[in-house]
Amino acid sequence: VNLLTVARDLRRRRAREREHLFVAEGVRAVEELLTSPLSIQGVLTSPPLETVPRGAALRRALDEAAAERGFAVRTVSEAEFRSAAETESPQGVLAIAGIPERSFEKCETDPRHRMLVLDGVQDPGNVGTMLRTAAALGVATTVALPGTVDLWNAKVVRGAMGAHFRHLAFHSTLDALLAHLEQHDIALWATTASGAPFETFAVPDRLAIAVGNEGAGVSPTLLQHASATVSLPIRHVESLNVAVATGIFLYELRV
Amino acid sequence: VNLLTVARDLRRRRAREREHLFVAEGVRAVEELLTSPLSIQGVLTSPPLETVPRGAALRRALDEAAAERGFAVRTVSEAEFRSAAETESPQGVLAIAGIPERSFEKCETDPRHRMLVLDGVQDPGNVGTMLRTAAALGVATTVALPGTVDLWNAKVVRGAMGAHFRHLAFHSTLDALLAHLEQHDIALWATTASGAPFETFAVPDRLAIAVGNEGAGVSPTLLQHASATVSLPIRHVESLNVAVATGIFLYELRV
Repeated sequence: VNLLTVARDLRRRRAREREHLFVAEGVRAVEELLTSPLSIQGVLTSPPLETVPRGAALRRALDEAAAERGFAVRTVSEAEFRSAAETESPQGVLAIAGIPERSFEKCETDPRHRMLVLDGVQDPGNVGTMLRTAAALGVATTVALPGTVDLWNAKVVRGAMGAHFRHLAFHSTLDALLAHLEQHDIALWATTASGAPFETFAVPDRLAIAVGNEGAGVSPTLLQHASATVSLPIRHVESLNVAVATGIFLYELRV
Repeated sequence: VNLLTVARDLRRRRAREREHLFVAEGVRAVEELLTSPLSIQGVLTSPPLETVPRGAALRRALDEAAAERGFAVRTVSEAEFRSAAETESPQGVLAIAGIPERSFEKCETDPRHRMLVLDGVQDPGNVGTMLRTAAALGVATTVALPGTVDLWNAKVVRGAMGAHFRHLAFHSTLDALLAHLEQHDIALWATTASGAPFETFAVPDRLAIAVGNEGAGVSPTLLQHASATVSLPIRHVESLNVAVATGIFLYELRV
């Protein structure tokens, strides 16, 4: 296989879904990938990588891992690399890796746990930040409902800084989510800019917290299934940034 | 004056500082500006603005305000507008307004209050989000220290969604900040990824919370003057996004 062609192709969501592959770009993301349980299919580098010590170290680590695990590391020209890169100033390293198979069967069913539900969140920077926050604050699972940006989009992967290489994040339909919540007796809260302050509700031991689209909020269908619609007490502005609001909710409601 | 030339010039920080003017671009930002106490110097529009109902309504409101307050509204071609715009898909409206004169003399000295200190935060999206969060969570003042992106940068203004048209946010030196804190008996906390959990400290009635650069954190000089170095309890990842961490601190420590 031509890694360059594959990497270029994987910029499209449809190709990622078909091939069950994604691209992690940049020194930091590839470092995280290398120490994660995810399966690396191949790596592309370009000469600028080895001009910085951290890049040169990563190159050596990649060569070792490639020999052990049997994937290819191929060096291409800067121009070729740029044709596959998603960043404006590429650091000269990207890895193609397998999207892990994840589903509700793999979710923990601890007596107390938290789930994050992304209901149509569209900005990849926000979603990357939210995955990083969810992992940091002990959320067990993040579920992305239809209308949410692809979790394996290059910008999401970069923004998450490796969080979802380990954090159990995956796409699901609303029906599958609702079935899982019912089966495991997990409460569903919807967050909005105008609901009741969340402090007025007793906090369930098992709780899924849904956050919605940057403009429209949580969908009416999800709202119907939520046992509470909660908000943060804010003044002066219409709303908080969705990633900031999510961070506050996850911190306040952490187990 | 040629508004187009002025708007183009104001894309440079130096020009904004010299002229004490900034640009608010887009329907939402100009709507917020129009209802704020800030002084509008002139408005540029292009034909696409009036193709959407909200844009057409804004145009009418601008014409009324222009007649009352005596500023110019000038319509230019799409190409000309684009030459001054900072967004990739301009909505066809930008306003030039005066940067308000703000300083520590205008800060409130309530028995209990919160201040946010930005110590070298460089991403304009993060700073815009943080100003919006600070305003929403009742922070009295946000102070930007040297090394922080210009608060009146177009991306910061857009990200803040009008927050700093009212929220008392301004640039200051560290010396001026420290003098103000001492004079008004305001404690200074520095936030880091590796300090003690903030819950282990008694929370002062008057508190300034400093957050640092995305990579390097709070500066060593500021750290020396902080009475506590505090962090959030996180796992699995190195750090939270600075805007998310700031949101959690400001929420937890709100008065």
